[in-house]
Amino acid sequence: MKNQTYRMTMLFDFYGELLTDRQKEFFDLYYNEDLSLGEIAENAGISRQGVRDVIVRAEAAMQEVEDKTGIIKRFEAQRPHLDAIASAADELKTINYRQYEDARLTELADLITAETSALKD
Amino acid sequence: MKNQTYRMTMLFDFYGELLTDRQKEFFDLYYNEDLSLGEIAENAGISRQGVRDVIVRAEAAMQEVEDKTGIIKRFEAQRPHLDAIASAADELKTINYRQYEDARLTELADLITAETSALKD
Repeated sequence: MKNQTYRMTMLFDFYGELLTDRQKEFFDLYYNEDLSLGEIAENAGISRQGVRDVIVRAEAAMQEVEDKTGIIKRFEAQRPHLDAIASAADELKTINYRQYEDARLTELADLITAETSALKD
Repeated sequence: MKNQTYRMTMLFDFYGELLTDRQKEFFDLYYNEDLSLGEIAENAGISRQGVRDVIVRAEAAMQEVEDKTGIIKRFEAQRPHLDAIASAADELKTINYRQYEDARLTELADLITAETSALKD
């Protein structure tokens, strides 16, 4: 299951709070803390298959919400716009550095870069 | 209920697809199409109170998801960053217009403005 860690981490980041405590705990241990199914099972005193079932159901619940709402897709659609803004700010800085050396232009371009980074997190 | 139309529209925009068809229909007619409870009731052949109950339950369901996930809050937290980027781009354009008249700087600032607007929608 761990070959889909990025997708799982996104689902958990957006929809993790919709899960039950148990689903949340196992999902977090497995994908974020990188424990194995066996380790989680041993700690929880249940079977490896039991742990797997909880995690699979958690994933299905979150994926269902995403399939209906498309919210993660919407967030990810912002990325190319943010990249375009960041690279325009870089080019502004380069032009200013080479030709004008205007301190306020530098400040403004730096501000755009910083705000864009904040939006990417 | 209609004094909360902005909040309701946001909830519906993000989470409307999590509602049942009937919830979705009534909610949409009431908040987006601006029909009255009485008009919806008459069209649907049920009581005004019945319509109200469906809409109240729909709102509660969506608000619960938002209270848990905070996704709308997260989207709205982007706005000040986007506003800061847009106003930096405006100031860049003004400085360039007054002092440098550099066509490429104008293009880059315009691109930042356009990308920022796209992200605000």
